[in-house]
Amino acid sequence: MVSRPGPESLRPLFWPKSVAVLGASNEPSRIGGRPIRYLKEGGFPGPIWPVNTKGGTIQGLPAFKTIDELPEAPECLIVAVPAAVVCDAVESAAKRGTKAAVVFSAGFAEADEQGKKWQDRLVRIAAETGCRIVGPNCLGLFNARHGYAPTFTASLDHGHPKPGVVGMVSQSGAYGSHLFVLTRDRNIGMSCWLTTGNDCDVDVSDTIAYFAQDPDTRVIAAYVEGVKDRDRFMSALEAARRAKKPVVMMKVGSSAVGAAAAMSHTASLAGSDVVYDAALKQLGVHRAETTEEMLDVVYAATRGIFPDSNRLGIVTISGGAGVLMADAAERHGLDVAPMPEAAQARLKAILPFAAVRNPVDTTAQFFNDMSLVTEFTRTILAEGGYGAIAAFVTAIPRNRETGGRLKDALMKATADYRDRLLILCMLASPEMTKEYEEAGYLCFEDPSRAVAAYAALSRFGRSFAKGAGSPPPALPADARPVPWGVVDESEAKALLDSAGVPVAAERLAKTADDAVRMAGGFGYPVVLKIASADIQHKTEIGGVKLNLADAEAVRAAFAEIIDRAKKERPQAILDGCLVAPMIKGGVETILGVIDDASFGPVVMFGLGGIFAEVLKDVTFRVAPFGIDEARAMIREVKGFPLLDGARGRPKLDHEAVAKALAALSVYAAANASKIRSIDVNPFIVLEKGAVAVDALIETK
Amino acid sequence: MVSRPGPESLRPLFWPKSVAVLGASNEPSRIGGRPIRYLKEGGFPGPIWPVNTKGGTIQGLPAFKTIDELPEAPECLIVAVPAAVVCDAVESAAKRGTKAAVVFSAGFAEADEQGKKWQDRLVRIAAETGCRIVGPNCLGLFNARHGYAPTFTASLDHGHPKPGVVGMVSQSGAYGSHLFVLTRDRNIGMSCWLTTGNDCDVDVSDTIAYFAQDPDTRVIAAYVEGVKDRDRFMSALEAARRAKKPVVMMKVGSSAVGAAAAMSHTASLAGSDVVYDAALKQLGVHRAETTEEMLDVVYAATRGIFPDSNRLGIVTISGGAGVLMADAAERHGLDVAPMPEAAQARLKAILPFAAVRNPVDTTAQFFNDMSLVTEFTRTILAEGGYGAIAAFVTAIPRNRETGGRLKDALMKATADYRDRLLILCMLASPEMTKEYEEAGYLCFEDPSRAVAAYAALSRFGRSFAKGAGSPPPALPADARPVPWGVVDESEAKALLDSAGVPVAAERLAKTADDAVRMAGGFGYPVVLKIASADIQHKTEIGGVKLNLADAEAVRAAFAEIIDRAKKERPQAILDGCLVAPMIKGGVETILGVIDDASFGPVVMFGLGGIFAEVLKDVTFRVAPFGIDEARAMIREVKGFPLLDGARGRPKLDHEAVAKALAALSVYAAANASKIRSIDVNPFIVLEKGAVAVDALIETK
Repeated sequence: MVSRPGPESLRPLFWPKSVAVLGASNEPSRIGGRPIRYLKEGGFPGPIWPVNTKGGTIQGLPAFKTIDELPEAPECLIVAVPAAVVCDAVESAAKRGTKAAVVFSAGFAEADEQGKKWQDRLVRIAAETGCRIVGPNCLGLFNARHGYAPTFTASLDHGHPKPGVVGMVSQSGAYGSHLFVLTRDRNIGMSCWLTTGNDCDVDVSDTIAYFAQDPDTRVIAAYVEGVKDRDRFMSALEAARRAKKPVVMMKVGSSAVGAAAAMSHTASLAGSDVVYDAALKQLGVHRAETTEEMLDVVYAATRGIFPDSNRLGIVTISGGAGVLMADAAERHGLDVAPMPEAAQARLKAILPFAAVRNPVDTTAQFFNDMSLVTEFTRTILAEGGYGAIAAFVTAIPRNRETGGRLKDALMKATADYRDRLLILCMLASPEMTKEYEEAGYLCFEDPSRAVAAYAALSRFGRSFAKGAGSPPPALPADARPVPWGVVDESEAKALLDSAGVPVAAERLAKTADDAVRMAGGFGYPVVLKIASADIQHKTEIGGVKLNLADAEAVRAAFAEIIDRAKKERPQAILDGCLVAPMIKGGVETILGVIDDASFGPVVMFGLGGIFAEVLKDVTFRVAPFGIDEARAMIREVKGFPLLDGARGRPKLDHEAVAKALAALSVYAAANASKIRSIDVNPFIVLEKGAVAVDALIETK
Repeated sequence: MVSRPGPESLRPLFWPKSVAVLGASNEPSRIGGRPIRYLKEGGFPGPIWPVNTKGGTIQGLPAFKTIDELPEAPECLIVAVPAAVVCDAVESAAKRGTKAAVVFSAGFAEADEQGKKWQDRLVRIAAETGCRIVGPNCLGLFNARHGYAPTFTASLDHGHPKPGVVGMVSQSGAYGSHLFVLTRDRNIGMSCWLTTGNDCDVDVSDTIAYFAQDPDTRVIAAYVEGVKDRDRFMSALEAARRAKKPVVMMKVGSSAVGAAAAMSHTASLAGSDVVYDAALKQLGVHRAETTEEMLDVVYAATRGIFPDSNRLGIVTISGGAGVLMADAAERHGLDVAPMPEAAQARLKAILPFAAVRNPVDTTAQFFNDMSLVTEFTRTILAEGGYGAIAAFVTAIPRNRETGGRLKDALMKATADYRDRLLILCMLASPEMTKEYEEAGYLCFEDPSRAVAAYAALSRFGRSFAKGAGSPPPALPADARPVPWGVVDESEAKALLDSAGVPVAAERLAKTADDAVRMAGGFGYPVVLKIASADIQHKTEIGGVKLNLADAEAVRAAFAEIIDRAKKERPQAILDGCLVAPMIKGGVETILGVIDDASFGPVVMFGLGGIFAEVLKDVTFRVAPFGIDEARAMIREVKGFPLLDGARGRPKLDHEAVAKALAALSVYAAANASKIRSIDVNPFIVLEKGAVAVDALIETK
């Protein structure tokens, strides 16, 4: 297999030296006409070669009848011809030297079996020639920095994109166009935009990886329905984080109906939504629930300031707005910490009626004296220690004169703090808003949205600061690989033990006498469990006896367990009973591994019993991961206080759980090809240590 | 005490026959100048009498030096003079016949003790004369239907309100103005707007009650920081529900910082946020978390259609948008039910590439043939059985020609379904959007917001259909009133039993012999508990012994309990021990009553143990309420499946819990003056029936 080309291989897509349009049309609103029109409108400096079987002149350019007639291979080939003739053309160009192809044509895997075969051939062409292929069935792409737009989206009819720092990739053409229109409407500048269509070669992961290394792109936005290759997906996102480029992603399909619709739409595997959620959280991606939220965060991120703090200072001319913003801040996990006492006293001295703690309420007094705005804002910037200030000024900037004076007063205050975020909540004309934005301020109409956007910036800031966190621990040298075939409980425990997941002591007793002797060794009370590779769900057949207090009880339990097992599972080969000390106290948790269709081994953590069963109070991470992620997992579940000494309970050793989770994740990743699932249940957390009492490994 | 005048008493505020402005100014941007200017601009038909100690002419009108010089009492008096002279003027006018006063002046309860006294006097004047007083310290009001605007908000500088059906009341002047500006920006028509300032007389409840009976108002919006009189508040909201007028409320102060800020801001009691949440839910109010959400729901409600269904049909030109909208629908509790099979088959026959289940994806094909839009939309309306259809059409209506054709195609489809909601998700110019709105469609840019707004309309529809639900049950004739003073466990149980809350059988044993005899009567095992009015938390002193299996155990337990009690609480008078049968199985729940500062007795329900303690999985309702609300409470907690037979557990008698909750709510309301709290914990739910095993009543 040819290794996949690096992100720089996408450069000829986004900025080629020459372009040919196959299926070129003289009609500038047709699928084969738009790209030529847009290339001409954008002033593409290289040659544009229309190709059409009829030849002649197309939109003023001399046309070629076949691509073989072209003077040389175009660096990029745009394809707008029927599906049946696409593969030959792309292959021929690629062999001649074409580095990139954008296939608009539909009729491939989304249509029928024949189309699927053609698409498979495109995949092979890309792999064999190294030519990067976008689509088929895609809307194309643009590079706003160079005004280069090989696309047939009609959304450019209303205006070309403004050059800027946002790179956008979408698995939906129509929704990608919708996002572009919204971005342009909000005056957000873009670097590049790409729709992946059927994802035959260039996909979301490739495009994000390209953006991660593209100096023109500082913010990455992605609309995703499903990804197929988790390693490339996660590497691309990790590369973006390392480059300190925030990724804002809308991953749809969280609902049952939505996931079913996504699957029929993209013919890709939607994957389990909770696992996407986990993976994106691990990688510091902002997963947006709505399009508006996506654009809010993208917009805020273009300012390029990502505070490593969750403290928010609020200044307002309306007490009501201050309350509302403090409420929103709490919902988004922000800290509306009070101003330092000295600063409060100073502000109070300037304006006795003002609230000065935080939210700071200047009242309408500043209308009469704009120097108050300067004084208050500068003091909060200088002394508040906030990651950002959100200022509510309602419709004041709607009046041109007052709006101008307010901006001047703010600029005096922020002159020495250009690296700090000032977010204005204001109602103003688009022109006035633009003036404020050019002065370096973020502007939102809705104060709650302003607060939410800052929360996202601050999460990015913390994610950039911490990076990937602690690396996964090394797999222990003597960790035993998961075997093929059935794994019984005893073996499962031995495997986990070798992997670094602590397991309760236990021994195999072949006879009742053995069991009594071993119980004496452990000390009473003990537990007896049927030992048989053929019996996996032991409790169901009465194969477990707890809290056996003496030799007599052990003897009776041994006999009963073996009897029942023979009766319930006559075919099973019985090895005897496992004897283990009865673990007292502690809290039952569950550690698990599932083999996710999109992400491979994923580790689960939750408290046992009703927490997992009824409340679904569980959390996930993609394996492998380090101790930091494991600690975060444990703190995420609602039942965490039960491990942490809530309400007079003993504080339990949840650090031991974190170590076990990280070890389990490494083991699961190392044995990904064989593991269907692992269920460590219960994993009992004690005041000192934690142990697996039962474990099940299902292999593929 | 004079009974409070009815809502019609606010008519002279919103539409008086004559107006005097006290403190009138010739300068039209000053506090005493704006109302005169706005009244003149609005063409107020009655006399406008400026009053200013200097006399002369003010804004072209002859001025009076004192209000006593006026030819007659103005029906409404606007007051913009210093606080010190307000009371005399208002009293004099009220005695002469003035029916309403709007006091702009600050310097009252929000300022200092003297101001508080003046404000108290205004309260008395209102009560004694029946003159309704708004403010003090308020921004005034307007009646958009008549262009009448006695206010000094500068927000009218940018344009007067559009007449329409939305009545708005705000406890914050500045935020109320902000809301008005947003409403005007969104082209939403208003009936009336009022800011309550310091709430001395006319408050949010009065205004909502007025809107509930005002034929011009069909939708009510309220910004609230805290209310003082729960009965009037709840009656006003119930009146709105009976009139089928949706109430959209922003109640701020949900966060700790926010609540503290609200308190300092309005000097009113913010109240416990969860209780507000409960009360608003009970009354069918939409509590908006953000201002944008508030306006979205208000806007959607102006269409006047409130489906008694939560089914949503989605039609889209982008598969991606359909997935996204289905996700949003699930988050908002909507049902994206599939189209009937026959209708699916018919659509598939028209357009084989389309997805026809729901979301219905027409693909971009309709661009070529707009009759598809008509055909698809009509079929979904006619056969889908949805409460609304949300249609995603992205930026198509941005092009004037295509936008017009699309509208025509839709209008053909909806002509026979004018009473049905069609919500368009589209990007268009304000002018084009207005055209669609005038055609009867709701227009949203963001599809998730469109879905959320429909969810709110559908909740209103269901709330209007069900009304207040079942009434509270009657208080049992032999219910014993809560006494003053300390109530011991035995008495608490007897009281609850008399109120209709089932209580476990128990008897008081004065001696160990008594206890053995009673235990024999109940049958073993039994429970013994210390009986003493002086000992409330029995477990803490070892005063409870469970699961006593025989006479010997009862005897030993009796002795031990009495011994410990004597040792731990030497001052307590001991009555002996309570003997009760040990209840086996079932699930422990907690029923409680708290005396909320704003809402009085509020009933709580939750599962016991970690559910209440660690997970805070509890729910509230304001007392009293009927069985419907009680059933809803039980279903709201996350642990509900444990009562309902989750995972092979027995299905328990939660209907018995519902009856007990309703009975408890009635009892708490009837004894509101005496109850500080009631704690029925545990209240054990069995397969048949449910019983209180312990109970505590704290009196005031």
